[in-house]
Amino acid sequence: MKSDNLLLGIDRRTLVSSLALLPALSRTLLSTPAQSQATPDAPLASWNDGTARQVVVDFVRATTDRASPRFVPPEDRIATFDQDGTLWVEHPVYSQVVYCLDRVPAVVEKNPKLKNVEPFKTVLSGNREAIAKLPLHDLEKILVATLTGMPVEEFEAEAKKWLTTAKHPRWNRLRTDLIYQPMLEVLQYLRGNGFKTYIVTGGGQDFVRVYSQQVYGIPPEQVVGTAGGTKFGYHKDGKPFLTKEPKLLLNDNKAGKPEGIHLMIGRRPHAAFGNSDGDRQMLEYTGAGDGARLMMLVLHDDADREYAYGPAQGLPGSKVGTFTQALYDEARKKSWTVISMKTDWKRIFPFA
Amino acid sequence: MKSDNLLLGIDRRTLVSSLALLPALSRTLLSTPAQSQATPDAPLASWNDGTARQVVVDFVRATTDRASPRFVPPEDRIATFDQDGTLWVEHPVYSQVVYCLDRVPAVVEKNPKLKNVEPFKTVLSGNREAIAKLPLHDLEKILVATLTGMPVEEFEAEAKKWLTTAKHPRWNRLRTDLIYQPMLEVLQYLRGNGFKTYIVTGGGQDFVRVYSQQVYGIPPEQVVGTAGGTKFGYHKDGKPFLTKEPKLLLNDNKAGKPEGIHLMIGRRPHAAFGNSDGDRQMLEYTGAGDGARLMMLVLHDDADREYAYGPAQGLPGSKVGTFTQALYDEARKKSWTVISMKTDWKRIFPFA
Repeated sequence: MKSDNLLLGIDRRTLVSSLALLPALSRTLLSTPAQSQATPDAPLASWNDGTARQVVVDFVRATTDRASPRFVPPEDRIATFDQDGTLWVEHPVYSQVVYCLDRVPAVVEKNPKLKNVEPFKTVLSGNREAIAKLPLHDLEKILVATLTGMPVEEFEAEAKKWLTTAKHPRWNRLRTDLIYQPMLEVLQYLRGNGFKTYIVTGGGQDFVRVYSQQVYGIPPEQVVGTAGGTKFGYHKDGKPFLTKEPKLLLNDNKAGKPEGIHLMIGRRPHAAFGNSDGDRQMLEYTGAGDGARLMMLVLHDDADREYAYGPAQGLPGSKVGTFTQALYDEARKKSWTVISMKTDWKRIFPFA
Repeated sequence: MKSDNLLLGIDRRTLVSSLALLPALSRTLLSTPAQSQATPDAPLASWNDGTARQVVVDFVRATTDRASPRFVPPEDRIATFDQDGTLWVEHPVYSQVVYCLDRVPAVVEKNPKLKNVEPFKTVLSGNREAIAKLPLHDLEKILVATLTGMPVEEFEAEAKKWLTTAKHPRWNRLRTDLIYQPMLEVLQYLRGNGFKTYIVTGGGQDFVRVYSQQVYGIPPEQVVGTAGGTKFGYHKDGKPFLTKEPKLLLNDNKAGKPEGIHLMIGRRPHAAFGNSDGDRQMLEYTGAGDGARLMMLVLHDDADREYAYGPAQGLPGSKVGTFTQALYDEARKKSWTVISMKTDWKRIFPFA
């Protein structure tokens, strides 16, 4: 992948930290009832028989069996899931970045002075090649302009509208349709066994909270993400409101994931799921606890049905959702389970 | 109250913001089973009949009755409670400040150089008058030294030990015994009716999380408080851990309360309980939502059974838990309910 492609080539941590600076569906939400994708009688129905499926089943059985030495009391059953590349498609560009670019015309309409100012001018041109080449500090300006400066309710309404209309170029489907059916089943299976499921994402906390309940069955308060501050103030009529500020509180990626888990949850998960080097520390932190712990990584090795990228195991390299060989080796060494999309998943999407 | 008394005289916001920089039972926890203080048949048994009790009962009935125009869907039933002065005794000094002072000898033992350095020297002297006169920047040094710099598990273990031994000078009882029985009943009554109860405290989030489950029946992830950052790192053996850092992320007091609620919960509460000017913005934010909303303030007007302070309604002024006349007037104007400890509460403590 060429590194002069800005949107694909920038460092994920930096990008996501900027994303965080800013922040948040209905037809699509209603069309993907995460709660009813599997029946209790057939957990993990979209998984092929194999080690990955078995590891999940064994973990749930051991942690919920009072007679097991690996039993975990219900109040301690916390499971955390990365979102981009773990629960939904992250290629070729993170959905939230596309959201920010799509919001530029509205931002310029509100502030016409920006029309001839970079990077807004380039984004408005629609020239994809030029947009992809925008330097990082310009992309940050776009994130700040589209994710901060407005009341939280206004941001939520805008994100919701976008999520019900914007489609992924490859499938021509809403982004919230491009969620992984096998992972929905894991969420549901864990919840059905008393686990509290959390999203722990490098993406914007406010962005993901807009659709987490309807898409994943995860309420807003169980979404930990890159988060900016808000500022409390009053309208002229005395009514209070919160404005989204360009002040980064939590860069919820890499080391920021365990730090975010401590801040927002306050206890160590017993299970953690990711798909990239951004999730390494979360899995390490989860694995460092006593008793039963489940650590799993999704490997995108299915170019036909989704995408194939690593560079682990000789897959093509990628700046979005990088899964290095070093992470793969650490997983082997620590007995984390690598999920092969190609081999372990019977189907990828709910609509398939 | 003399303003040269440091511990009582410093501005609450400043103090609490410092408190947050750092972070924090067992016999007491076991002795105060918050979950079993009232029976479903007799909610609010420790409340006298009157407006305050009736307002709570009416709110719960309306929000849980599907036929009511004020019905609130179960997933939106969020209730937030201040802690100091709302759920437990805050006079004469916040418990967490006492914790920090009590920790000084251990800190000096670990770092003997501090023995002859202020403010540690004064605290070690045990001279209460001198300790009370320590300037604010010295108190901040104590907070940073006792609440940060250690792994999160070490802090939790230390706080737990203190909470099971340190006693309040007036009652000679553990701090966790000095919780308000009528408020435990409100917590339980709301939970019994599908509300998710949160603590939203100016105190340290990590400190309160140590005992919130056992004392109030509120799990750690439902405690929002003044919070510092942590830093992810590795022990020599490669095992990861989090260290408490002297970096303030959330000053969860006044305007910081609605800001903290947005950060940690992501939605507006339907009920909010407080007792001081530090809770004003939380109640305003709660009241600014549509539909059924319940806003209540505890007024400490019972010097015999607990304490009497305001300065609202001619009560003695206090720098700890200040309830101004302006707040009282705002409550009247906005139809918030002021709870009189003296009139509305049949008993104050579970042990009474």
